[in-house]
Amino acid sequence: MTKIILSQRPFREEFIQQMETIAPDFKFQTNMTENHWSDVVITIGWQEAWQPHLLAQSSNLKWVQSISAGVDYLPLADFQRANILLSNASGIHSRSISDHVLTVILMKLRGFVESIHQQADHQWQRDGIEYKFLSDQRILIVGTGQIGQELARILTLLGSAPIGINTSGHPADHFKATFSDDQLLAEAAKADFIVNILPLTTTTKYLYDERFFDNLKSTASFINVGRGPSVDTEALVRALKDQQLAFAALDVFEEEPLPADHPLWQLKNVLITPHISGMTPHFQQAFMKIFLTNLTSFIKEEKLSHNAVSLTKGY
Amino acid sequence: MTKIILSQRPFREEFIQQMETIAPDFKFQTNMTENHWSDVVITIGWQEAWQPHLLAQSSNLKWVQSISAGVDYLPLADFQRANILLSNASGIHSRSISDHVLTVILMKLRGFVESIHQQADHQWQRDGIEYKFLSDQRILIVGTGQIGQELARILTLLGSAPIGINTSGHPADHFKATFSDDQLLAEAAKADFIVNILPLTTTTKYLYDERFFDNLKSTASFINVGRGPSVDTEALVRALKDQQLAFAALDVFEEEPLPADHPLWQLKNVLITPHISGMTPHFQQAFMKIFLTNLTSFIKEEKLSHNAVSLTKGY
Repeated sequence: MTKIILSQRPFREEFIQQMETIAPDFKFQTNMTENHWSDVVITIGWQEAWQPHLLAQSSNLKWVQSISAGVDYLPLADFQRANILLSNASGIHSRSISDHVLTVILMKLRGFVESIHQQADHQWQRDGIEYKFLSDQRILIVGTGQIGQELARILTLLGSAPIGINTSGHPADHFKATFSDDQLLAEAAKADFIVNILPLTTTTKYLYDERFFDNLKSTASFINVGRGPSVDTEALVRALKDQQLAFAALDVFEEEPLPADHPLWQLKNVLITPHISGMTPHFQQAFMKIFLTNLTSFIKEEKLSHNAVSLTKGY
Repeated sequence: MTKIILSQRPFREEFIQQMETIAPDFKFQTNMTENHWSDVVITIGWQEAWQPHLLAQSSNLKWVQSISAGVDYLPLADFQRANILLSNASGIHSRSISDHVLTVILMKLRGFVESIHQQADHQWQRDGIEYKFLSDQRILIVGTGQIGQELARILTLLGSAPIGINTSGHPADHFKATFSDDQLLAEAAKADFIVNILPLTTTTKYLYDERFFDNLKSTASFINVGRGPSVDTEALVRALKDQQLAFAALDVFEEEPLPADHPLWQLKNVLITPHISGMTPHFQQAFMKIFLTNLTSFIKEEKLSHNAVSLTKGY
């Protein structure tokens, strides 16, 4: 019996060869047309169609290597019951997401949000365009993991002094200061930009609700590159309509794709991107660095040396 | 007789007091309703309506402190004839213009140019969105003065290694390499981004012409934050329409405001901003640092210690 590494996406031949060198008993596949599901021991990514087969009694699945940093969409309780290991791709999207957030902040500070609408109307209008320095802004980053630290690093390089929020308020590299999550409201009230990069868990669901938005400066901007359901979208739309919040840049949504008739599309003080902030150049190379390291330790001792996810915490 | 400092714009009281401390014989004014034009010795900025008075035989104008970095719109030959000193505001717009250019480059690299159009159409579409790292881009900065160096500095901080063009190819801070202007075509042909920040002079008029655009990679982007007339706009529009040039971000134009029926407004691969890249927070403070230093040396010995402009070179 050949064991199978089942992947939701193809990889270049060079990487498949490296897998087979590390794990000669395994075969890399992207589909299951002629095989027994019970031969699948490892998956790269996850698909709903696989679920009945790979969570069945007969399954021999031992390890799921997620392609994303967030793992909220995976059946974590089922994995735990079946003793399936899980690792994520945390780290490889850090620079991409940081660049995305930096872009959005600069677009707001340098008058691009207004210019875009004027261009659509063929209008030349300098009055009312804002222009501010990054160094004068108070930027609050909610989540101080790998992505948060990379974002804090590049903001610091450009003269800003970002503040971070994490569970315990422990220090984190490149942050001027960090606070624990019970300080979120108090810190958000002082911030010019609030950036959410938290994973979705039961405690972060609807973290950004009416009370949160009511509490902000009316000149504040909210940026979400974490997960959509961390935001009460109705409360967000209301805050934007009432100018209780000046601006939002949203890359993730409660419902994706964002439905064509969703009120968010109509608002001029919103910048919508279709969940692209994590898209990463050289993805295969960066991802394989994590996967092949884990594959080596998995073959040797059925352990993951890198990016293991706690199935109870969800990150 | 009180001498007059005539300014095209108001300044805060604190700065007016500092002027009058340094130069007690002078009075700061923003209009000339009740005065003799022959009392004007210094101007801050310039207005066309002043011209007949201040360039007349009877004028005692000695020094013009421009509010902008570029001085192409001033009557330089007349100033030279009348022995009028000229200084510019070079330096104070460096960070603003650099931030503007960085924003535009990141918008292109992180899929915002496409996302903006999709948002206008209420469309969610991830395919076809580009995402690239700054560190993989070859960025050519044409002009290695104060603005060019500040732009090169922040690009270098973020992992890029910008190339510069200047008259002689002399080294400049923060550039990986510099070339002389006869290498412009050869260097532009290799570049992913070409950024114009040159002043407008007789030699930079229509520097970017059909031959220039024909010579670029079809994936290249052109950014103009220098002066509009450095570009043959018709050739640029053609290159953009034919996809001979992938993208242009334009902050300056041959005709400003850009006329409402101009073909540039129609193009999807263009980002138009209404000459805002130089808009600077804390402008008065930064500008007064230059002006008050010069005022001190002007009072003492009728010389400018800072940012003097050559009336023959035009910069």
